Order: sequence, then structure tokens, then C-alpha cells
Amino acid sequence: MPNQAPPRGLFITVEGGEGVGKSTNIEYLRRYLVEHGVDLVVSREPGGTAMAEDIRQVLISSRTEPVAAMTELLLIFAARAQHIETVIEPALARGQWVLCDRFTDATYAYQAGGRGMDPELIRHLEQLVQGDLRPDITLLLDATVAVGMERARDRGALDRFEQEQLEFFERVRSTYLQLARESSGRYRIIDANQDLAQVQQQLHGVCEELLDCWGVRQ
Amino acid sequence: MPNQAPPRGLFITVEGGEGVGKSTNIEYLRRYLVEHGVDLVVSREPGGTAMAEDIRQVLISSRTEPVAAMTELLLIFAARAQHIETVIEPALARGQWVLCDRFTDATYAYQAGGRGMDPELIRHLEQLVQGDLRPDITLLLDATVAVGMERARDRGALDRFEQEQLEFFERVRSTYLQLARESSGRYRIIDANQDLAQVQQQLHGVCEELLDCWGVRQ
Repeated sequence: MPNQAPPRGLFITVEGGEGVGKSTNIEYLRRYLVEHGVDLVVSREPGGTAMAEDIRQVLISSRTEPVAAMTELLLIFAARAQHIETVIEPALARGQWVLCDRFTDATYAYQAGGRGMDPELIRHLEQLVQGDLRPDITLLLDATVAVGMERARDRGALDRFEQEQLEFFERVRSTYLQLARESSGRYRIIDANQDLAQVQQQLHGVCEELLDCWGVRQ
Repeated sequence: MPNQAPPRGLFITVEGGEGVGKSTNIEYLRRYLVEHGVDLVVSREPGGTAMAEDIRQVLISSRTEPVAAMTELLLIFAARAQHIETVIEPALARGQWVLCDRFTDATYAYQAGGRGMDPELIRHLEQLVQGDLRPDITLLLDATVAVGMERARDRGALDRFEQEQLEFFERVRSTYLQLARESSGRYRIIDANQDLAQVQQQLHGVCEELLDCWGVRQ
């Protein structure tokens, strides 16, 4: 009897502005899913491969040279193309789940919402680079900008993106919330203004839902 | 009386495969044009700004990780977007001439001709990134692949692009010659199989033509 291909894995992304607790909560999700038997790949954008991490460094370095908006956008999608082809697609095809810290929704939120680039341009590159690939589930960690910035400042130095103005982060947040409304089937909004225990209770609920639906609960 | 804007500068690109003598001949062109009174900016692609040179490094580094064709293409256009916005357009607008070692024709020759990417994809990104910007004159240094590879080998170590197979470089060369046929008004083909003195005699003729047409001969 020929080997059957494994069922395609689930592609989960975690989104949110600065200081909403992405790293801590991704670690919570990772541990929960692995403990419940999920064969999981955890990655991040921009990055996720050695080459894509090199591109990330080019993107986030502080520079005296002004960075053209188009340059930034093409670098983000260059890193994404590499990440998809060498990490995400092979993992999903093997039946692994992929948990990714940010994906294309972040490009809509930061480059279109934050910097005012035409979202049609992003939609265009999304189609070009991703074809049909979209996340199956997106967790939006949502906190007010005041709460997020205070946590980010406590964490230490701010990189080029984090030095932006408050109005920028307000536009990022409202773009994320708009994406969540437009794709309510895919999005789960987590109230990240709450304390960690309450946030993780919400995440627990989403994980239960995913494991129930996908039938891998042990 | 208000200051008049200077007439827009001339955008000259130099194209050709490996070992056709681009560096030596660009230096000849630079010296000739500057000596004849041209206010000239010399640059190169991928590169031409600190950030674009960082992107060039990401592109040409030898890697064990396979590089997705789409990643390569987006990185090239990211560097180009930065180069155009921070160097090429401001110089042309100031009335300076720009002499550039490779531009988008190299993307058609290497990525479409050499690697087999869809040229429509390149045309698409060209339009997105460049708008109406095209070179005014393109000098194609054309030599047989055998001659070019022998000179490139004499020069020392080969980078990732130079390690490609001979058939690859045959496709690059024939794509360049096809572009020259399609844009014969813009292209000047220089026979780079000849010895240096003869090549530079051909370049001298093109420089005379440019200076005559643009009226800056002193």
C-alpha cells in the first residue's frame, strides 16, 4: 500500500503592536501545543531562515540614510519569500504546524496603516509571493498603545521601528483591529491589557479550540 | 528673476556578462566625460548607497541555504528602489549625469534569461519601482562567453553568480543581445572581444555622440 501524505499542518500567526507580550505568549502557546502532541515549528518574521535573518538585520539597523518606503516593503517580502519556500511550506506539507511571530498582516498594519503605503501594493506583493498561502488562524494580542509602549520601554533599547511616534502606533493598532473585523473567521482577538494569567487563560481557550477542531488532542 | 531648474541629466548604463571589462571601461568613460566637462555621478547595481550595498552583500554571499528565485528578485529591486530614490533621481534632477554599472537590463539578462524567471514579473516590478525611469543610453559590452569567462577567472575568486554554468552565461548573453535589438535606439553594442585599445576607440565614438547631442562639449 502506498504511503499516504500526512494531512497538511495548521498555519498559526501571532500579531500585535509593540509591548503586547508576543514573545512570552508565543512561548506559552508553543509549550501548550507541544505538550498536547502537536509537531510544531516556531518561527518569526521578518526572519526565520539564516538569509531572511540577514535581511531582517538590513531592515532594522539604525541608519543615517533615509529608507525608501518601497525598499522597506520589498525587503520584507524578500525575507517572506525565502521563509515560505524554505521553512513554512515544507513544514506544512510534512503535516507540522507552524506558529509564526508576525506575518503579512503586520505589513498591512505597519507599512500601510503606520506609514501610509497603498494597501493595494501590499495585496499585490502578497499575491505574487504567497499565491494562496494565508494563515489558518491569527491571534491578535491587542493592547492600548499606552500599555504597549510602557512595556516596550521597560524591555530596553528601542529599534528603528520602535522609535516611531505614538500616532504611528495608534494607526498600527487600528489597522490590526480592522483586519480582525474583515477576517473575523480567521482572527481571535486576545485582550492583552489584562495581566499575564488572564491573557494566558484566553490563549488556553484558543488552543483548546484548535486541538478540538484538528483532532490531535491526546 | 527666479532660478531656472537645470536641464535633467543623462542616465547612462553599462551592461554585459562576466569578464567583458565593465570596470576598466567604466573608468575610461568616467575620465573622458569628466574631462569634457560633464558633472558625473558614477554608481553601480546592486548597490550605490550604504543600505543598497548591505543588500548586495546579502545577495552575493555564498550560502548553504538555497536562495528562492523570488527572494533574489525582490532583493535586487529593493536595492534598486533605494538607489533610485537616494542617488539616481536626485542627481538627474540636479542636472548631473549618472553612469551606472548595471541596471534593470541585468535583471532581465540574469534572472529571466539566466535563471528562467518570467520576464513579465520583472516588467511588473520595474514599473512598480521605477515608474517612468529608464536609461537614456545603454552600452552593452558584448564578448563571447569563452572570452569573458577566461578574463573573469584571471581576476580571481568567483562569487555565487560567477560559479554558474556556461549555458547560464550563454543565456545571459543572448538575452542582452535580444534587449539590444528590441531597444536599438537606446542601446550601443560594443564589441568587447577586441583588445582594450579597440574597445576604447568604440567607447570614444559613443562619448563623442553623447557630448554632441547634449551640447556640453567644451
